[in-house]
Amino acid sequence: MQSEPSTPDHGLPGVERVPTDRLADLLDLGEHYRVVRAATEALCQGLSAEDQCIQSMPDASPTKWHLAHTTWFFENFLLAPRLGFRPFHPSFGYLFNSYYESVGPRYERPRRGLLSRPGIEVIHAYRRHVDQAMGELLEEPLAPESVALVALGINHEQQHQELILTDIAHAFWCNPLRPAYRAGESSIGAQEAEELRWFAWPEGIHAVGTDGSGFSFDNERPRHLAWVPEVELASRLVTCGEYLAFIDEGGYRRPELWLSDGWRTVKERGWAAPLYWELQESGWWQFTPGGMRPVAEAEPVAHVSLYEADAYARWAGARLPSEEEWERAAAGAPVSGNLAEQGRFHPAPAPPARDRPAQLFGDLWEWTRSSYGAYPGYRPAPGALGEYNGKFMCNQMVLRGGSCATPASHLRASYRNFFPPDARWQLSGIRLAKEPTWT
Amino acid sequence: MQSEPSTPDHGLPGVERVPTDRLADLLDLGEHYRVVRAATEALCQGLSAEDQCIQSMPDASPTKWHLAHTTWFFENFLLAPRLGFRPFHPSFGYLFNSYYESVGPRYERPRRGLLSRPGIEVIHAYRRHVDQAMGELLEEPLAPESVALVALGINHEQQHQELILTDIAHAFWCNPLRPAYRAGESSIGAQEAEELRWFAWPEGIHAVGTDGSGFSFDNERPRHLAWVPEVELASRLVTCGEYLAFIDEGGYRRPELWLSDGWRTVKERGWAAPLYWELQESGWWQFTPGGMRPVAEAEPVAHVSLYEADAYARWAGARLPSEEEWERAAAGAPVSGNLAEQGRFHPAPAPPARDRPAQLFGDLWEWTRSSYGAYPGYRPAPGALGEYNGKFMCNQMVLRGGSCATPASHLRASYRNFFPPDARWQLSGIRLAKEPTWT
Amino acid sequence: MQSEPSTPDHGLPGVERVPTDRLADLLDLGEHYRVVRAATEALCQGLSAEDQCIQSMPDASPTKWHLAHTTWFFENFLLAPRLGFRPFHPSFGYLFNSYYESVGPRYERPRRGLLSRPGIEVIHAYRRHVDQAMGELLEEPLAPESVALVALGINHEQQHQELILTDIAHAFWCNPLRPAYRAGESSIGAQEAEELRWFAWPEGIHAVGTDGSGFSFDNERPRHLAWVPEVELASRLVTCGEYLAFIDEGGYRRPELWLSDGWRTVKERGWAAPLYWELQESGWWQFTPGGMRPVAEAEPVAHVSLYEADAYARWAGARLPSEEEWERAAAGAPVSGNLAEQGRFHPAPAPPARDRPAQLFGDLWEWTRSSYGAYPGYRPAPGALGEYNGKFMCNQMVLRGGSCATPASHLRASYRNFFPPDARWQLSGIRLAKEPTWT
Amino acid sequence: MQSEPSTPDHGLPGVERVPTDRLADLLDLGEHYRVVRAATEALCQGLSAEDQCIQSMPDASPTKWHLAHTTWFFENFLLAPRLGFRPFHPSFGYLFNSYYESVGPRYERPRRGLLSRPGIEVIHAYRRHVDQAMGELLEEPLAPESVALVALGINHEQQHQELILTDIAHAFWCNPLRPAYRAGESSIGAQEAEELRWFAWPEGIHAVGTDGSGFSFDNERPRHLAWVPEVELASRLVTCGEYLAFIDEGGYRRPELWLSDGWRTVKERGWAAPLYWELQESGWWQFTPGGMRPVAEAEPVAHVSLYEADAYARWAGARLPSEEEWERAAAGAPVSGNLAEQGRFHPAPAPPARDRPAQLFGDLWEWTRSSYGAYPGYRPAPGALGEYNGKFMCNQMVLRGGSCATPASHLRASYRNFFPPDARWQLSGIRLAKEPTWT
Repeated sequence: MQSEPSTPDHGLPGVERVPTDRLADLLDLGEHYRVVRAATEALCQGLSAEDQCIQSMPDASPTKWHLAHTTWFFENFLLAPRLGFRPFHPSFGYLFNSYYESVGPRYERPRRGLLSRPGIEVIHAYRRHVDQAMGELLEEPLAPESVALVALGINHEQQHQELILTDIAHAFWCNPLRPAYRAGESSIGAQEAEELRWFAWPEGIHAVGTDGSGFSFDNERPRHLAWVPEVELASRLVTCGEYLAFIDEGGYRRPELWLSDGWRTVKERGWAAPLYWELQESGWWQFTPGGMRPVAEAEPVAHVSLYEADAYARWAGARLPSEEEWERAAAGAPVSGNLAEQGRFHPAPAPPARDRPAQLFGDLWEWTRSSYGAYPGYRPAPGALGEYNGKFMCNQMVLRGGSCATPASHLRASYRNFFPPDARWQLSGIRLAKEPTWT
Repeated sequence: MQSEPSTPDHGLPGVERVPTDRLADLLDLGEHYRVVRAATEALCQGLSAEDQCIQSMPDASPTKWHLAHTTWFFENFLLAPRLGFRPFHPSFGYLFNSYYESVGPRYERPRRGLLSRPGIEVIHAYRRHVDQAMGELLEEPLAPESVALVALGINHEQQHQELILTDIAHAFWCNPLRPAYRAGESSIGAQEAEELRWFAWPEGIHAVGTDGSGFSFDNERPRHLAWVPEVELASRLVTCGEYLAFIDEGGYRRPELWLSDGWRTVKERGWAAPLYWELQESGWWQFTPGGMRPVAEAEPVAHVSLYEADAYARWAGARLPSEEEWERAAAGAPVSGNLAEQGRFHPAPAPPARDRPAQLFGDLWEWTRSSYGAYPGYRPAPGALGEYNGKFMCNQMVLRGGSCATPASHLRASYRNFFPPDARWQLSGIRLAKEPTWT
Repeated sequence: MQSEPSTPDHGLPGVERVPTDRLADLLDLGEHYRVVRAATEALCQGLSAEDQCIQSMPDASPTKWHLAHTTWFFENFLLAPRLGFRPFHPSFGYLFNSYYESVGPRYERPRRGLLSRPGIEVIHAYRRHVDQAMGELLEEPLAPESVALVALGINHEQQHQELILTDIAHAFWCNPLRPAYRAGESSIGAQEAEELRWFAWPEGIHAVGTDGSGFSFDNERPRHLAWVPEVELASRLVTCGEYLAFIDEGGYRRPELWLSDGWRTVKERGWAAPLYWELQESGWWQFTPGGMRPVAEAEPVAHVSLYEADAYARWAGARLPSEEEWERAAAGAPVSGNLAEQGRFHPAPAPPARDRPAQLFGDLWEWTRSSYGAYPGYRPAPGALGEYNGKFMCNQMVLRGGSCATPASHLRASYRNFFPPDARWQLSGIRLAKEPTWT
Repeated sequence: MQSEPSTPDHGLPGVERVPTDRLADLLDLGEHYRVVRAATEALCQGLSAEDQCIQSMPDASPTKWHLAHTTWFFENFLLAPRLGFRPFHPSFGYLFNSYYESVGPRYERPRRGLLSRPGIEVIHAYRRHVDQAMGELLEEPLAPESVALVALGINHEQQHQELILTDIAHAFWCNPLRPAYRAGESSIGAQEAEELRWFAWPEGIHAVGTDGSGFSFDNERPRHLAWVPEVELASRLVTCGEYLAFIDEGGYRRPELWLSDGWRTVKERGWAAPLYWELQESGWWQFTPGGMRPVAEAEPVAHVSLYEADAYARWAGARLPSEEEWERAAAGAPVSGNLAEQGRFHPAPAPPARDRPAQLFGDLWEWTRSSYGAYPGYRPAPGALGEYNGKFMCNQMVLRGGSCATPASHLRASYRNFFPPDARWQLSGIRLAKEPTWT
């Protein structure tokens, strides 16, 4: 990095202006690129060529497609604009564009599982080819826009790392053989759950959104003020044991606990427990990265939809937190916990909460009551990258905090994840909130 | 009204605590009941028995069903709990319950158009029967809970008055004969549209929700503080002429203007103009209460979805207002304009805006960027009436301000209407907002 | 009738060549027209305007639509080609064309229930208008082609008479009030069912199709030879009592009894009994023209699909007859029995069978194992009337014999009715056949 | 084979009674088994593990699934009843049962493409395991029932050989890369099509169904008499050039040419040409086993539905033959032509027709006008194998003659193939018939 950034806010979705005193960080961009790309491929070890080809539902994608799409992202946004560029394959732009209308037409999402060709070995050659060219690019002096794009591409790839894990889990769940992703990885902890306590915050004005100290997505910007009411947040995530009580008391059969759309969904899809739970003769079992095993009561309940999280909270006399309430609680907390680096890929019982709630980062994404929308003053980037986040700001709900499949370097207090309220295949869980005045 | 309310906040969804100094208003409750009930029936004049029987889509209901359901509301919530009550017909609770799960099973919504029996004359007998009993009830001293319920029932009936109009419009639109609801009611004004100006507000804390001075729904409560950013609001609604420019410049063919769900909807349903518009040889025509006639450029564009409102705003370099921004602008404004009392039932060109934006009340409901959710501290009422509003707080967007089919006595600045983002058959329109810093 | 037919076989779907010695019959054409038209309207007595407007499923049509469509048939095919013709209403050709692609576009079938306008009184005016013009036409000397068309129109109207009854039955069934079409019309006979016996036929060549002695549809032509195997036919229709045994022995839960498509249909639609049957605390009840009443065991089982008829036959160690086997058995039998003229509109217990099987005509249409197809040498008429029968010769099964809602003058041994194998709302029942060699 | 068959007609679907003088043939059963099993695997050469895993539509299955299902057939029906049998894997009965309800529950057909496990190498081990056990079984003296079952299993496997080819073709077609199954296999013949001539047959009684001289399926039995009318059959299949004329003259836009269900299908699916045809700038191209190349006018048109075949015939002033007409024409003809043994897997221009029509066997299955049903006296086998053919005798049409993907040893004049009328991914084509009296 030799040239100083001249346009402090260039409007790219992936990066905040880079202050001069953080230029040192950028020297590590090439290393960060290599580490993240390698981490993606490490996730695929143990998966066969067939495993990496299948797609179990329109919302999920084949492993192979994730490997190619993240590569296309670098090829299309970093390499393609360069002089003398030749794409690895003329059809890959069509095959591996996810949703960028501005870039051109694309292969239909629900049919990604039909792409037996290109084979996995061609996909790996594609990765090598782009890694080579990116390696050359990263040795050159880069304009700030390019730095921002590389950082965006790295964070984009980290998002797909988590999707590789959640998508293959769903695919394996659809197979009656219930194959294990990694044998022995998710044994049951023996301990009991920590007692649930409440942490209180007074009402007041709070600054929400990125503090500008590092990478952020455009949907975390601009930082702005919000009036946040007084609230109490639970000291840990809701556990499987607590959720079992909800089930046992007829939670899935009582319409008064549910949002109207939630109740319709419960009936239409026959929901009676979280995704990946199965009632066997010996009780409830659960599908984990290590295969089927009994539900562990001290672990956080995972793979619930917003509808289930909301109904559980109502049953428990509480509610879900807003994203501002959550962010205020997480501000200043270290990004540590049961994250992807642990390699467990399954939520763990909460540690004791001390000066703040436990499990704010890691374990499970926490559903909030906040609909995903634009912050005041939000403007998406011009061009295709403006489609990265902005066009999804309707019919989705915000989740916060990251999961056991999220890399630590990918997270921060202002991070906003989002999914439709009926989504269950993500690593999503429940943190309760309540009004201080409630009994 | 002789007894003083003992429980100031009894939690019913329909009514704020009734202060002692407003008891006089309640003396008029009986009269208000009679006026509103008669207004409902007046809307049906000119409709045949067959007209009042049909249902053009699952979201709409037959006129006859509205007439019966509003009556059932009074029967079920006011009369049924009383000693010696006998329902008018044992099946009407099943047939005319709309969505109250707690009350019991109900007839499927999409099949309401199959109810040729009970005939319209039976429905009128049902109304007479309940009106008679309600008349007796309203002459007695009433507990505050009952007063609140009557007020809720009256406001509920007013909501269905508007639905009667929007539902029959859709039914007539589905008939190739395109019958007029009322001949000659919606002639085209000759004037040109007022020039669009912008009104600015600074950022600051604002109190949002009912001020407690009269009836309100539970979703307007509790009044709470919110930080509202600085914003500019347009002086009037977007006109048909302006919307035509959007169409002419390819608005419905440019994905970059649309939310992702919006663009998918445009393609799946083949949208190319607002609902009720039809391209004829001589240009765009529009279906109105008076039948088909050319689009009038000075009139506000109506029958657009949130998706279209959002896309138009993006095309125009603006955005939609949040509901808090809208409410701040409307606070203190008189509830007057082109409302149901005018009997026009079609939006009119805006009058000049003086000290505040024009058309805040009446003409068209204004889509906001706000997802419909609970205010901080919101708690729905216990029992069936808790289903009135709360269970819909997901996947819907807030509209504000009332329309040309809304009675004046039904509205206030804190009023929150809500519909899914793809709904077009309501009298919905567009008011633009923008960030002051935008060029 | 003064001119002699010059083209003995003019290919119209509705009429065989008219031999000179049968011209006398044609003198009664006008009278026949008036009787049939009046019979249609008599069926609507007791139905309200709303009853006549509703459509309970895409396969059914509103009463009002039947009244108009049969009228349009005469207007379009007889009156429209005449000099100086002016249609009653310019849109009625669009609204009331059923399926004639050659005539022009038409209103979508599933939305016929939305046509509150034209009102029932306008439909009656339309009928009067066309009857007037037809009356004039029928007093003139007619070319044989016109005679054929009038005869076709009359038979077409008779088909819709039966549909009026089956469609309003289905509409009333969808109403939880279960209104009676005609009170008291279908009381339960007290008698027991006649014992089931078998009538045998030897194999041999048989002439199939119209014998040319009167009106026939084009699908009954040309008369041709077929080799018909030896077979035994049951002496009467399967009774409700026999069908109850099939239900009680798990008939709807045993896949080995069903055609593959039938079993899938059973599971998808949750079939567990014939249409219009309902299990109440006191046993099985049935919806009849007189309303709900207990199933009568001696009556023929009605409202079964081909799939159910086939499964029942398999369970009973028998099979369904082919249409040729049926026609051979019915050849020469008088067209008499429980037909529309009885006004019962519900099947009755079989009378004793003497020299041939009972109930061949009337009571219920009998499903055959024969797929509906063209006879050898079949050619549809040129033009729109060629669409009357020919284009449906795929994916439908032949039914024979007429029902209690079919006029006697509409039937003959060669008559071919046809419906898809999953249709249940017609008056369809089961006659068993078996191979003589089966034990 | 040492024991003589004691029950000449044991009712199995797959085999006619075995006459004593054909016992010699059975000595070759083991060899036949090995040859057919090896031929199946040879078809998979050149397909990757991923290719063999994918499923492009519910009607198709992955290659891997075909490999396993045919193996399961032998394991379940031949090996499982034997003393000491242990299944290769306890779940394979569930995974690889196709449609035998009597055998037990099974994995849902539309999700076969999700089975990344068992991997292809496990499937091959499964085949080896069963081949080993079958080898032992085939060296023992076998009861006639077992001989019949082995023959059935072999013919069953041959049916799946053809499906492997048609299913992988469809899967590759769904891939925008349009991979070739085998490069260079289907070059275009240069020759012009032979002139179309007509062969005539007089009316008369004809014996239909198997003559008992070798293997037959139960649906070809019993042999029976039928009266077959006089008819003329075309000397060859309809060519691509002829079909292009149909397209060019608006064949896909003229409703009068189509069956009603066919026309609805054309509109709903947007059909404008046969499956695998694509309009490029240089004209119509076609997807073949060798990849995309221009349509060859002299080749028979393939991949048309019954609807298209019927519409083409109507346009051409002809009709489709009945299955009896076809069988009479093919009786006595040698089973030779462009069959699977040629390894071309694509239809070829017709050779000159001499004493009978050309292309009766091979090239393409020929749609008939005959609905698939039971022959007089037909009885399916008891037990699970009774499901092989009988339960599909509804809503399907008969095809005759075999295709370029059918092994010669699998065919005979009485062979009945069947598919729904909208199926296009099979190797189906058109042979015209006409009435001699037509001009």
